[in-house]
Amino acid sequence: MQHDKSLPDWVYQECPDASAHHREAARARQDQLTKPTGALGRLETLAIELAGLQHTERPRAASVPITVFAGDHGIVAQGVSAYPQQVTIAMMANFCAGGAAISVLARELGSRLEVVDAGTLAEQSMSGVVTDKPRRGTRDFSMEIALQPAELAFAFDCGKRAVVRVAQGVPDLLILGEMGIGNTTSAAAIAAALLQVKAEAIAGHGTGIDAARRAHKAGVIDAALTRHGLAADRSPERVLCAVGGLEIAAISGAIIAAAQQRIPLLIDGFIVSVAALAAARLNPSCRPSLIFSHRSAEQGHRIVLDALDARPLLDLDLRLGEGSGAALALPLVRLACALHNGMATFAEAAVPDREG
Amino acid sequence: MQHDKSLPDWVYQECPDASAHHREAARARQDQLTKPTGALGRLETLAIELAGLQHTERPRAASVPITVFAGDHGIVAQGVSAYPQQVTIAMMANFCAGGAAISVLARELGSRLEVVDAGTLAEQSMSGVVTDKPRRGTRDFSMEIALQPAELAFAFDCGKRAVVRVAQGVPDLLILGEMGIGNTTSAAAIAAALLQVKAEAIAGHGTGIDAARRAHKAGVIDAALTRHGLAADRSPERVLCAVGGLEIAAISGAIIAAAQQRIPLLIDGFIVSVAALAAARLNPSCRPSLIFSHRSAEQGHRIVLDALDARPLLDLDLRLGEGSGAALALPLVRLACALHNGMATFAEAAVPDREG
Repeated sequence: MQHDKSLPDWVYQECPDASAHHREAARARQDQLTKPTGALGRLETLAIELAGLQHTERPRAASVPITVFAGDHGIVAQGVSAYPQQVTIAMMANFCAGGAAISVLARELGSRLEVVDAGTLAEQSMSGVVTDKPRRGTRDFSMEIALQPAELAFAFDCGKRAVVRVAQGVPDLLILGEMGIGNTTSAAAIAAALLQVKAEAIAGHGTGIDAARRAHKAGVIDAALTRHGLAADRSPERVLCAVGGLEIAAISGAIIAAAQQRIPLLIDGFIVSVAALAAARLNPSCRPSLIFSHRSAEQGHRIVLDALDARPLLDLDLRLGEGSGAALALPLVRLACALHNGMATFAEAAVPDREG
Repeated sequence: MQHDKSLPDWVYQECPDASAHHREAARARQDQLTKPTGALGRLETLAIELAGLQHTERPRAASVPITVFAGDHGIVAQGVSAYPQQVTIAMMANFCAGGAAISVLARELGSRLEVVDAGTLAEQSMSGVVTDKPRRGTRDFSMEIALQPAELAFAFDCGKRAVVRVAQGVPDLLILGEMGIGNTTSAAAIAAALLQVKAEAIAGHGTGIDAARRAHKAGVIDAALTRHGLAADRSPERVLCAVGGLEIAAISGAIIAAAQQRIPLLIDGFIVSVAALAAARLNPSCRPSLIFSHRSAEQGHRIVLDALDARPLLDLDLRLGEGSGAALALPLVRLACALHNGMATFAEAAVPDREG
C-alpha cells in the first residue's frame, strides 16, 4: 500500500520490539506450573505475550487507565444512525457523571477514566472533559472530504497527547474507547477503503438501525469511496482525510504513541479495531503491542479482526463501544497474570509431573 | 429415559421456579439504561436471568464460594491418564496450600474455597480438607461396576452436605470444581451412556494424552458400556453406578441441592457439565439454575453443552478443571450485575433516546 507520509514524523517512527528473552522465560515458567501443559489455554499465551511486551517475567495488569475519545460526524446528515446527533455530547456528560457503561466499568475495575473531546459539536469545554480538537465535527463525507490534512494531523497529535498524560501514571496496559453518533459509518468506510471490500460486507447495524437503513448506509459509503477516488489511491492518510473521524484518528494516533512508549493496548470493538487497522497500516511495528479483547456483534468486526490476524478473548455479542468490551476483558488479563505469577511449580508443591 | 429412583428421596424433589416477575422487571430496566437496546449482548441476558433466579430486580454475584470435590478412579489401572494416580492427593494438598490454579483464583476473587475428599485414595484425613467419602476410589469399571448403589447415594448426600455448609454464608452463586486423575474417562463414559454416542466422539485428550492413548481410552469406555449393558438400560442411577466417580456424583448431588435451595450455579468445564447433565436427567427442574461458564478444549464438552442447550460465556481453550473456568467467568457475571445496577437510565442522565 502506498503512503504519502503526510502525518507528523513521529507517526512513522518504529515501535520497540517485545522481549523474546522475557517471553521465553515466561513460557518456561508456564510449563512448570502445577497444571497439565497448556491447560490454561489462551490465558497462558496471553501471560506469555504480555511478559514479552512488558519486558518482565512477571506480567502485570494492575494499572490500566481508560481514555475515551468523542467526536461528531457530518455524515449523520445522511440519516445513517438510529440516534440523534446530540447524544454524543449528552453521553460525554454521562461518562463524567458516572452513569455510562464505561463509567461503571472503570469504577469496578479501579481504572482512571479520561474523556477527551477530540471533535464533538460542543461549543464550550465541558467540566471533566479534556477538549483537544481542531474543529467541531467532521464534514459530511458524502459531499466533501471529512478532514483536511492539518485537521487529521491534529487528531493524531491529540491521541499522542492523551498517551503522554496517561504515561505519567506508568500504566501496565491501556484501554481506548470511543463515542460518536455516526462513527460506525465512518469506521465502516475506512475499513472498506483500506481492505478494498464493498460496504455491504462491512457496514453493520451500528446502534440499532434496521435493514433498510443499513442498506442506505452501505450505499452512502460506497458512493463516497467512489467520489473520493479511494479505489485508486488508498493510502491510510488519504482514507482518513476522506472518510475518517476525529476520535477515530485520535485513537490511531494514541495506539501508535502508546506502542512507541512500550505501553501494550487492550483493543475494544469495531471502531477501535478499525483505528488499529489504520494504525497498523501507517506503522506496522505497532501491531505486536495490541491485545484484542472481543469480537463484537457488528458484522464488519470479524473482517477487520481477520485482516489484523487477531483472535480476541471474548465473543459476547457486545456492540456498545466506549471501550466497554476491552474493560470487560480486563479481569481475564488480570487473572492470567495472577495465575502466571501466583501458582506453585511442580517442584514447589511436590506434585508428581506427568509420566514419560 | 427410565428412572429407577434408587437415590435418596430428596434428589427427586422439585426445585423452585425462577421469578418471571423479577426477570421481566430486570428486562424493563435494561431497556432504559443509557446504551442502545441489546448493546451489552450476553451480559444483558445474564443479568436478567440471574435476577429471575435470585428473585430480585438487582442481581448480585458478590458472595460466590467455591467447593472442589476430589476423587480417585479405579479405571486408571487401564492406562487412560497422562499423570500418575498420586497426583489427586498431591493436588488436594496444593489446593489447601494455595498453589493450585483454583487457589490463586479463589484468592483473587475473594471466594471461600472448600476442598472435599469425596473419594480419593487418601488413607487419612488431610488438614484443610473435608473428608466425606464412602470408600477410597472407585472400582475399575472395565472389570466391575464402579460404585454400589449405597456408595452412589452416599456421594449424592456428600454433595448436599457441602451445599448445606456453603448455604450458611448466604451465597449469591456457587462454583463447583473437581480433581481426580482419570475422571475425564469416567465423565466421558457417563456422557456416552446418557447421550448414546460412541466414546470416540466424546473421549478427549484429558490432561494431555496422545492420539494412541485417546483411542485406547475410547475403546476402554465402549467395552465397559457394553459389559454393563448400558445400551439397554441407561437410567442415570445405573450409569453413575456402572462408570461414575464419587466426586462427579457428589457434584451432581450438590447441583440439585443448590437448585432446591435457590442458589444458582456457575458451571465449570467438561466434568462438571457431565455432572450437570446427570443432575438434569435425574431432576430436570434443576436445569434453569445453571449458568454455563465456558466451553473447554475437551472435545466432548461441546456435545454435552449442546445436550443441555447451554451457551457458555467463555471459549478460551481451557482444559484444567478444578472449577477454574467458572472462576474465570465470575468477573463477567459481577460486571454484568454492576452494569445492570449501576448504569444511569436515559431519563436520569437526560440523554435523548433513539428516534422513532
